[in-house]
Amino acid sequence: MLDFAEQPHKRKNLLTGEYILVSPHRSKRPWQGQVEDLAPDSRPQYDPKCYLCPGNSRADGTQNPDYKDSFVFVNDFSALLEDTSIEQFDEESLLVAESERGICKVISFSPRHDLTLPQMDLPAIKAVVDLWQREFKELAEKEWIKYIQIFENKGSIMGCSNPHPHGQIWAESSLPVEIEKETVQQKTYFEQHGRTLLQDYVALELKKDERIIIDNEHFVALVPFWAAWPYETMIISKRPVPSILAFTEEEKEDFARTLQELTIRYDNIFKTSFPYSAGMHQSPVNTGEHPEWHWHMHFYPPLLRSATVKKFMVGYEMLATPQRDITPEQAANTLKQQSTIHYKG
Amino acid sequence: MLDFAEQPHKRKNLLTGEYILVSPHRSKRPWQGQVEDLAPDSRPQYDPKCYLCPGNSRADGTQNPDYKDSFVFVNDFSALLEDTSIEQFDEESLLVAESERGICKVISFSPRHDLTLPQMDLPAIKAVVDLWQREFKELAEKEWIKYIQIFENKGSIMGCSNPHPHGQIWAESSLPVEIEKETVQQKTYFEQHGRTLLQDYVALELKKDERIIIDNEHFVALVPFWAAWPYETMIISKRPVPSILAFTEEEKEDFARTLQELTIRYDNIFKTSFPYSAGMHQSPVNTGEHPEWHWHMHFYPPLLRSATVKKFMVGYEMLATPQRDITPEQAANTLKQQSTIHYKG
Ligand SMILES: O=P(O)(O)O[C@H]1O[C@H](CO)[C@@H](O)[C@H](O)[C@H]1O
Ligand SMILES: O=P(O)(O)O[C@H]1O[C@H](CO)[C@@H](O)[C@H](O)[C@H]1O
Repeated sequence: MLDFAEQPHKRKNLLTGEYILVSPHRSKRPWQGQVEDLAPDSRPQYDPKCYLCPGNSRADGTQNPDYKDSFVFVNDFSALLEDTSIEQFDEESLLVAESERGICKVISFSPRHDLTLPQMDLPAIKAVVDLWQREFKELAEKEWIKYIQIFENKGSIMGCSNPHPHGQIWAESSLPVEIEKETVQQKTYFEQHGRTLLQDYVALELKKDERIIIDNEHFVALVPFWAAWPYETMIISKRPVPSILAFTEEEKEDFARTLQELTIRYDNIFKTSFPYSAGMHQSPVNTGEHPEWHWHMHFYPPLLRSATVKKFMVGYEMLATPQRDITPEQAANTLKQQSTIHYKG
Repeated sequence: MLDFAEQPHKRKNLLTGEYILVSPHRSKRPWQGQVEDLAPDSRPQYDPKCYLCPGNSRADGTQNPDYKDSFVFVNDFSALLEDTSIEQFDEESLLVAESERGICKVISFSPRHDLTLPQMDLPAIKAVVDLWQREFKELAEKEWIKYIQIFENKGSIMGCSNPHPHGQIWAESSLPVEIEKETVQQKTYFEQHGRTLLQDYVALELKKDERIIIDNEHFVALVPFWAAWPYETMIISKRPVPSILAFTEEEKEDFARTLQELTIRYDNIFKTSFPYSAGMHQSPVNTGEHPEWHWHMHFYPPLLRSATVKKFMVGYEMLATPQRDITPEQAANTLKQQSTIHYKG
């Protein structure tokens, strides 16, 4: 019998087809390496220098409206541009490139500079979910857009350069690398079983109940069996829908509730604003039907031992295979034990 | 015509088959985010508390020998263990795992605590190369070992917890994820062309001379066309050999020289000890012939704008596609303009 809690082993990520390495015995290793600075824990409700606060001006001189819930605009430093012509480049099949067209947007989650998602109330989080759905719908109406990536970088350790609660949407003319992989894996499964991969996976996880953190009417939050980051989680819709477009009012409320509870549990682990990159994976758009695609959201948080010691995905991880120390089951237990009331009260 | 220096575009990584996104116009973006601490720039030649310095004791009480050039030992906190039994785990093909057997070693590059590779003299670097070759040979003699990953994490920003110059070797019972990908890509090419992928790629890069940094008798160092990290580079042997095992004395000397020059150029860019994760990719062992496999070494350095501002591979990059701002050609130019004499003299 493979002993997950003691033996070094590899686990298969069903969504990418790739493995991760688990070294459970290694968490005893002492840490003498880099320690992160803690960001100041209190911020004003309004910061006159923040480019996301209501009424302030941005880099290009535009003035933000005096918004009351959430607010969206095209990123002043977009990585993708809408007015790019589509060009190919190919030299002896050895140098291969093509231009990429896209739109990058920024979403402010709240007019309040001092909050984060887990500190917002349910109606405010629900308003963000509504906006995500509206934006997805609007962007998907442009025929040239094939994929819409909704995500959030939270915390300076995740490259977030402004603590005002916000996320991003990058919509583009071709499928990103990770989406290609997940499409292949989900499609193969759907063709073989006539059910989505995540439908069957969630059913098995609910039965085993070893990695489930939240289980409500419409969503589960769990530590995937193949989690690479120490406290990596996924939110998965119980109904096999391809995208947020299909969410009913009830589902949107449940999703908001799940988001709130999961991020509160995160903050409570180390009594800190828990950094992460998170984002939804959804069906490509304007590329025919995708019955194989099952909406889900990934959370990739970097912290490992404390509010200031992260997991480094470096040498072996970059060159060979992602590697983790604590097991996904241990991480799920820690998350389950947290209070659902934010430590700041 | 696709304008690499102006248009957002994707480039194909020949070794993995995956794309990266280039946003050349985005380097104008101001940076208000996280800034790294600089590690103290001077260290003693000998540190009585360092577990790598000659004569000192390690975590388990073992005493290091009074070594004169380099020194290797099994990692006291190995992620992989030699005495793991091989077990499989499969539940409905949804939870899939297998145990992994391996050996993790640490290589001290020098008895001197205060040096790094670019500050060492050529004979000392050559001694490290000799040791890598010897270790590869010895490990490959164990039949159960299928792959040997030689690498270095340099700098605390890359998770390196001891500044004493050192690297690692993880040898294991199955092929890591990145090696699987590179095997597929190289095999497909070799079967079609009867030459290695990197042989033809290097020939084309030498002809174009836009991304070459070093070109000597036996090696080239270049910024690959598909580099994801700002100053990512590769060292590639001109002779299509599967592993370091095949290097002649002359090749080992040339490799040491290439390593020295490349890392000196790195340090000179920002006048800092340039952090990176670097490692060789080589043919699997004890798995039959691999004529498709062409030895190379990857350098993944995190810095982007200065000694303290790195590139964050976060939300979009983790969920979708790796993304870069400056073009590989701009990075190659910067590297080419550096002096080959270390800034510290
Ligand atoms: O082995 P070390 O130096 O203690 O640890 C470092 O390198 C390892 C291999 O890349 C990583 O798994 C660790 O996260 C990193 O901190
Ligand atoms: O767009 P931002 O917040 O300025 O930038 C941040 O998120 C982007 C998308 O994940 C990354 O490309 C950047 O490296 C990161 O600093």
